[in-house]
Amino acid sequence: MSVTNTRPGGRSSRIRAAVHRAVRELLATEPAEALTLPVVAGRAGVHPTTLYRRWGSLADLLADVATSRFSGDIVVPDTGSLREDLVRWTTDVAADLTDPDVLALMRAAVGSGTQGGCACAADRHAQLAAMLDRERERGGDPPEVGRAVDALLGPLYYRAVFTEHPAEPGWARELVDALLR
Amino acid sequence: MSVTNTRPGGRSSRIRAAVHRAVRELLATEPAEALTLPVVAGRAGVHPTTLYRRWGSLADLLADVATSRFSGDIVVPDTGSLREDLVRWTTDVAADLTDPDVLALMRAAVGSGTQGGCACAADRHAQLAAMLDRERERGGDPPEVGRAVDALLGPLYYRAVFTEHPAEPGWARELVDALLR
Repeated sequence: MSVTNTRPGGRSSRIRAAVHRAVRELLATEPAEALTLPVVAGRAGVHPTTLYRRWGSLADLLADVATSRFSGDIVVPDTGSLREDLVRWTTDVAADLTDPDVLALMRAAVGSGTQGGCACAADRHAQLAAMLDRERERGGDPPEVGRAVDALLGPLYYRAVFTEHPAEPGWARELVDALLR
Repeated sequence: MSVTNTRPGGRSSRIRAAVHRAVRELLATEPAEALTLPVVAGRAGVHPTTLYRRWGSLADLLADVATSRFSGDIVVPDTGSLREDLVRWTTDVAADLTDPDVLALMRAAVGSGTQGGCACAADRHAQLAAMLDRERERGGDPPEVGRAVDALLGPLYYRAVFTEHPAEPGWARELVDALLR
């Protein structure tokens, strides 16, 4: 994927905004299999060649949309307590994952077969690491980030994508308790 | 999805086998977005109408293929020790999830947006429940199946689908230790 010009207000960024909006609207209204670069181009009012040149493939376009959607959307709490930070953050992530539009984008990004992980996860890892690092700086002995990913992000994303059991109230705290006990 | 005739050797089961094989072959060779019912029909040498009548949608066809693939493929161990059973089973599931064909099918089944969970998970829940029930019958006090799903299946499937970190040796035992400690 090459995004050569993202100057706000420039033609390139207007196209990017229109294309991202078209993807989100199509995901909300059409079956996933209907999503192709030509269909997105038609919806966005952009020539298909532009999409192929700029994003290369549907997988790369979906990764770009996912990166936008999942970056900076959730604030990392700083309560002074690792447990409380993790409970608040896990609750926010769980709530985000009940949004049908978010689920549709995640499913599509996964299904398009992007290698190298889903853009919907990278920012979450960094946020977890930030909270654990802060606890370490306070002199605490937090779990490794890999363990926290397994214990929190694993079940959150697994339930959202693979099961029909949405997050229940109190579940976020259970997950954090299981990690920190 | 209605599968009216699955008599072994019958015309209907021959068609099903050809269509399933076509899906697996296409997933192994083509980008996910190329997978449509007409493309599958062409590959299987079956009229597209047959596929629409029998499976209704690509999502339902992928769910059917996933159900076949993920049913009965992993044997539930019975060593007499819950911990050892879970370590062996988790190791087997983790190994299965390193198979590129399995990952492609899972990603496609997720991406096709089937509501009601992915067929790649239902059988795994039942297997976990069987091991935990056996421990309870022995007089043990195993965790609830929901907790075991969160602690084992969550991280296994999350890593496989959302990250590029494959399972490392010893990881299965770490997950089980975190659940049973």
